[in-house]
Formats: sequence, C-alpha cells, structure tokens
Amino acid sequence: MDLKKYIAKVEDFPKKGIVFRDITPLMANGKAFSYATTKFTEFALEVDAQVIVGPEARGFIFGCPVATNLQLGFIPVRKPHKLPREVVTISYDLEYDSNTLCMHADSIMPQQRVLIIDDLLATGGTVKATIDLVEQMGGIVVGIAFLIELKDLKGRELLNNYNVTSLMEF
Amino acid sequence: MDLKKYIAKVEDFPKKGIVFRDITPLMANGKAFSYATTKFTEFALEVDAQVIVGPEARGFIFGCPVATNLQLGFIPVRKPHKLPREVVTISYDLEYDSNTLCMHADSIMPQQRVLIIDDLLATGGTVKATIDLVEQMGGIVVGIAFLIELKDLKGRELLNNYNVTSLMEF
Repeated sequence: MDLKKYIAKVEDFPKKGIVFRDITPLMANGKAFSYATTKFTEFALEVDAQVIVGPEARGFIFGCPVATNLQLGFIPVRKPHKLPREVVTISYDLEYDSNTLCMHADSIMPQQRVLIIDDLLATGGTVKATIDLVEQMGGIVVGIAFLIELKDLKGRELLNNYNVTSLMEF
Repeated sequence: MDLKKYIAKVEDFPKKGIVFRDITPLMANGKAFSYATTKFTEFALEVDAQVIVGPEARGFIFGCPVATNLQLGFIPVRKPHKLPREVVTISYDLEYDSNTLCMHADSIMPQQRVLIIDDLLATGGTVKATIDLVEQMGGIVVGIAFLIELKDLKGRELLNNYNVTSLMEF
C-alpha cells in the first residue's frame, strides 16, 4: 500500500516556510491506518519488544494499537504536570525554545526491551530525549519506529546506535 | 477481568483535594490494556460505528486501537494550533478557566455514524464539546464510551440523549 498518498502536504504550517506533513488523512482511512499499525506490529515482533513507549500526543496514535495488538504494555512520555506519580524528567533545546518530557519513574524495568514509536523523525530531539529517559531507568531500546522520516533534517544521525525504521521518507 | 485494580488512586493531584484516577498502570499491563480496548471494540460493533473520534491526548490511547481493530478511521479532537487545515472550533467553560477544541472541518461526513471514546467522564465538558463539533459537521453520535466514569460529578446528565457506556465507575 502506498501510504504517501494519505499524507497531506500543508505549506507554511505551523509557520511561514515550513512544509507540514499532515497525517490525519491516513488516520481517517481505516485501511491505511490499520496497515501502518500492522507494519509497526511486525517490526515490534522482529525486535522482540516487551513494551511500547510513545511521546504525547501523536506517539499514542500508532504506539497504542501496536501494544494492544501484541498484548504489550504502553508507556506514555508526557509533558510536565500530566503524570501524577514520581517522574523522571529531561529537558532539551528546540530551535528557539526548549521542551521538557517526563515518564513515570517506575514505568520501565531494568533490562526491559523497549520499542519507541512516534509519528515523525525530524531533527530527532524528542526521540533522543525519550531514549535518555528509557535508558536512565535501565531499559534497552531495541527499536525505534516512525511513520514519517524527513531526510533533510538528518535526525537519524542522532540514532546511529539503534535499530531505526520509518514507513515513509520525504 | 477486574480493571479497577489497575487504576492507581493519587490524592491531591493535580491540586489539593482532588483524587486523581491514574490509568497508566492499566496501560502498562498488556492484558488489561488489550482487554479494555476489546470491550470498546465490542461496543463499537454493537452501535455499528463507522468512525472513531477521540480528544487529545488520552482519547487517542483507547480510540486508536479500536479504530485499527475494526479498520475504521480515527478522527482526532485537538487543542488549537495543532491541526494544519481548516477547522471547526468550540470553546467551553471549565471551573476557573475555559478550553477550546478543534476538529478538521472535513473530518466527519454528513450522516456518518460516530463513536466517541475518551478515558474519563467527569463533568462532561470535553465530551459535550466533542459532540457539538461532530453534530456541527452532520455526524450522528451513535455511542460514547469511557474507561472511567466519576459518578459524583454527574457528567452523564449532559448525555441523556446518547448511548453511553463506561467500563468502570468510581
């Protein structure tokens, strides 16, 4: 299935000069959405994942169906003040700003085999921060899967030591 | 399966006097998480849903697996400035604040049979706003499903004309 035809290209969003890849048409198409999650599920089996991790909010969209398909747990990575119990936290720089992500401190077991799923690999800041949180808790990142990879932004260069897959490249 | 034992009770979150029902232990348990989504999937079949709608971020957690289980589309309800194309928008009052939600204006077809899924029915503000957006586009809300219903907050009273289910009550 050619998933690219379900991705809308939106110019100048969220700001002038940016070409935004809108995944909502893919999600709105039942066959395309389930096809994408099936591909992720196959990758989860291939890397023998024991738990799925995804950053809010769009990491939930693909990560949760993979978790339920395989009866695995899903661990959310969230913005501050969303998780109610003790968290591990990391901050990282964005172009003109910074971002902070949290996971519950007891959410990953030492040596647990973790698959991280997100919609988009751009500069790689979010996924790198997620890896750091997982590894801080002793988890092993056995795979990282994206729906879309933006090649020009070279996010994959941050992920040299990991098994990375993406379903589409732009 | 007794899902309640996978819900953590956290006192005084997000502020003093509030008892927060934390769903992350349920999500972290593969069997419990997939059991809950199976229950939602059965309800989707019962109400003959054609599309699943869920508000960010926790509505994605349960709604997306139901959509992919049934090869249905999933339509996200998002905070402002997240959806890149033309949106329909609604604002509603919270206790000391207000909230605005958006959906893409072309996301629901007239007469389409819509199932709304979210994690929590509290006062019902978010779900009422979601219903209004769906109906503005001509969709028919054939069902509304929650993981947890907080009975004391009487959110269900706003939903008298709808087919509402919840997997747990507190």
